[in-house]
Amino acid sequence: MTSSATRIGIIGSAGRMGQAIAAAISEAGHVLAGGIDKDGDVAALAAQSDVLVDFSSQAALEGNLDAATTAGVPVVIGTTGLEERHHFLIDHAAETIPVLQTGNTSLGVTLLAHLVKEAASRLGEDWDIEIVETHHRMKVDAPSGTALLLGEAAAEARSIDLATDAERGRDGMTGKRGTGTIGFAALRGGTVAGDHSVLFLGAHERLTLSHLAEDRSIFAKGAVRACEWLASQSAGRYTMPEVLGL
Amino acid sequence: MTSSATRIGIIGSAGRMGQAIAAAISEAGHVLAGGIDKDGDVAALAAQSDVLVDFSSQAALEGNLDAATTAGVPVVIGTTGLEERHHFLIDHAAETIPVLQTGNTSLGVTLLAHLVKEAASRLGEDWDIEIVETHHRMKVDAPSGTALLLGEAAAEARSIDLATDAERGRDGMTGKRGTGTIGFAALRGGTVAGDHSVLFLGAHERLTLSHLAEDRSIFAKGAVRACEWLASQSAGRYTMPEVLGL
Amino acid sequence: MTSSATRIGIIGSAGRMGQAIAAAISEAGHVLAGGIDKDGDVAALAAQSDVLVDFSSQAALEGNLDAATTAGVPVVIGTTGLEERHHFLIDHAAETIPVLQTGNTSLGVTLLAHLVKEAASRLGEDWDIEIVETHHRMKVDAPSGTALLLGEAAAEARSIDLATDAERGRDGMTGKRGTGTIGFAALRGGTVAGDHSVLFLGAHERLTLSHLAEDRSIFAKGAVRACEWLASQSAGRYTMPEVLGL
Amino acid sequence: MTSSATRIGIIGSAGRMGQAIAAAISEAGHVLAGGIDKDGDVAALAAQSDVLVDFSSQAALEGNLDAATTAGVPVVIGTTGLEERHHFLIDHAAETIPVLQTGNTSLGVTLLAHLVKEAASRLGEDWDIEIVETHHRMKVDAPSGTALLLGEAAAEARSIDLATDAERGRDGMTGKRGTGTIGFAALRGGTVAGDHSVLFLGAHERLTLSHLAEDRSIFAKGAVRACEWLASQSAGRYTMPEVLGL
Repeated sequence: MTSSATRIGIIGSAGRMGQAIAAAISEAGHVLAGGIDKDGDVAALAAQSDVLVDFSSQAALEGNLDAATTAGVPVVIGTTGLEERHHFLIDHAAETIPVLQTGNTSLGVTLLAHLVKEAASRLGEDWDIEIVETHHRMKVDAPSGTALLLGEAAAEARSIDLATDAERGRDGMTGKRGTGTIGFAALRGGTVAGDHSVLFLGAHERLTLSHLAEDRSIFAKGAVRACEWLASQSAGRYTMPEVLGL
Repeated sequence: MTSSATRIGIIGSAGRMGQAIAAAISEAGHVLAGGIDKDGDVAALAAQSDVLVDFSSQAALEGNLDAATTAGVPVVIGTTGLEERHHFLIDHAAETIPVLQTGNTSLGVTLLAHLVKEAASRLGEDWDIEIVETHHRMKVDAPSGTALLLGEAAAEARSIDLATDAERGRDGMTGKRGTGTIGFAALRGGTVAGDHSVLFLGAHERLTLSHLAEDRSIFAKGAVRACEWLASQSAGRYTMPEVLGL
Repeated sequence: MTSSATRIGIIGSAGRMGQAIAAAISEAGHVLAGGIDKDGDVAALAAQSDVLVDFSSQAALEGNLDAATTAGVPVVIGTTGLEERHHFLIDHAAETIPVLQTGNTSLGVTLLAHLVKEAASRLGEDWDIEIVETHHRMKVDAPSGTALLLGEAAAEARSIDLATDAERGRDGMTGKRGTGTIGFAALRGGTVAGDHSVLFLGAHERLTLSHLAEDRSIFAKGAVRACEWLASQSAGRYTMPEVLGL
Repeated sequence: MTSSATRIGIIGSAGRMGQAIAAAISEAGHVLAGGIDKDGDVAALAAQSDVLVDFSSQAALEGNLDAATTAGVPVVIGTTGLEERHHFLIDHAAETIPVLQTGNTSLGVTLLAHLVKEAASRLGEDWDIEIVETHHRMKVDAPSGTALLLGEAAAEARSIDLATDAERGRDGMTGKRGTGTIGFAALRGGTVAGDHSVLFLGAHERLTLSHLAEDRSIFAKGAVRACEWLASQSAGRYTMPEVLGL
């Protein structure tokens, strides 16, 4: 352990992501301060950690934030399915400690979203935007959360609203493509961990920006990098793009 | 003109395909025997042709077949939107002359369909099949006719029925992928002449078979090659795979 | 264990492939009859196995074949770096027992090679063939053995010789592409387990046949399937395409 | 003609690019002020143009710049094979008039280079960079000028020098990949107008940024957009990224 190693405590350590994060902590040369699950003592964990990473449940969020705030320890939140009141709690905690909440901790996807925003803002409406993703056969929803995140990046750059300007699930007599909309398509099969491509289709030329996850370890690795970065920030609410300096 | 040049007569010579075929005839070293459109004299055209190619209209089909049969001249039919009664007329003419009818004259797509059939028959149901196609922004229907043709090739190899075993237009809570089904997705934008990919997604490996049309000239070129081949056949009904010897 | 389970013995069980094969045997519902390494008793292993799989070393090949022949047990050989004399030994053993030797046990790659052969034999010299592969940054040679295997499949279909008709390592003033040759290109980086694409580039259209390995487990899985298939064959020398019925 | 139409004069109007530019001027709603070739009167052309576009020859460059400077008319230069003394002449003219010189006028490639620079500067050396391009069978050099332009964008972002840190033409026993280098590979065949992909290969994830030219019209279109933009600039030397506001 070098002097720059960060002591990371895992909330939700028995889950698939929790286990992957434990492996990623060790691989990155940091220190696993400890891990807890339901009914674990988060205050004790916070006391021995430089930063906490929470991949547990929405129900546990409030208690986790309280413990982190009391201990003055930064926290990275990867828990999904958050609602408005959870975001309110996060904003409140961020007045006292550094908090980073995100739906996707992959560095590659974070950078991709940034590049998509850049491309969408530079290319006019005569470049049609299409987003296609592929995931394993067990995935039950479409499009993927990451596809929507990429779509939001493009929509923001074009000042449009995905709720009204997206074309999803094309089938049958669709009529010609709407100008300025964003199309989504979903492929499903095999064991694909996650492919995402954003296509900019112009007159006689095409620009394609893609990300491929070989497996899910990258999400754990990105979470650890977020921990490392967040440990040295001051109080406030942060996002993944800031970890990459975007 | 060499002794092996074929004299090709075009029915529907003023249309986009008709014009492209005229160019392709000359490029392939064959002879444009003449071209007619609505109200043209198909009997006279047949008399001076070794083979006819018809990209006109369903309405004209019966008259065109009559003239070809009377003259004993083979005919390649690329007219779209044919119904059962047209196929009956074609079968009847094929008792007297060689007739080749197809919805796609591209040699590359014809070969792709053959390879898809081969792959689908060799790989079990644990390899999910997905078909994705991209076309220009003006296309009004999805999936493309060619995507369906490729799907039919896969369905035939697996003895399933696309009418019940296809997953089209995935969006929202779809549930996990059906085993043994074939998925379709459509992208639209720019000036794309036609990309088609058939993915076989297995456990930890993927096989992808793709075709990309740089422009629409390939359909004319394939029609000319079909003419050249059909000119030396005996009476009967033929398909594009036979042109390639598949 | 069902009555159709095959008892598979692993020669070279401590190596990376040996371990992966042990996992694949269990996953496929077969029985791991045992495993040996250098100085292990191959005769004893053969006695309790329905089929042997050998991923050990060239040096051990002769002894392994002797034991298998004596016991009358089929053997799948995945050992690399075989020379002419090893192939002579294999041919000799194959007079008594079923033997399958291969440099690539992946089912997807085996099928891809078959499709490449099919496509290359149908498309004329006006379709240029290019093979591009991507592997992790630690790979020390180029092109990959699998790229060469795919090139051999194409070369055989076109009756050309890769030794004289390949274009490798293009750089600088290359002059225009040779007609009828096969091009190879190699990309290196990251942790890529193995991507291979065979491109058929024609006039205004392209056909691309690709395989992507998400990880190396597929080679173990293919080896087990080869064992399962070989267990019920009669004496003779076999190849992977036969396992798939190609 | 609207009040915002730009009068564009073409130097080298009979060449392939000159003809394509004439078509693109009309398509964009601008005015073709005239066109000249060898021995044409460039001063007269300049007098009736809001902006000149030069795709003629190095030999003509000095005279063209003199005429443009005298007339006070901006000039877009797409002539290739320029040497140091030509760049000196351009710099000199740029003290008096707006001049934009570039080796690639495609808007898509210009944006791609910008995104590559962005990605390369954000991702560390543990992401290997590979550039692969495909062009038609008649192309005589490798890698393409555009691949090198993309490589320069990446090299600049990483503060490395392509002259020493590029891996080109991999073949045979290459040893493992060099850390921090940029790899190049070239595919050749068919009628491909130009595909370029820049791969960032990291640990278990990959980012790919690609451009595909369906035909060469995009270079003419980009040149016209550069003319339109340059017509309203003040004296100085400009580049394509500035046209896109990058």
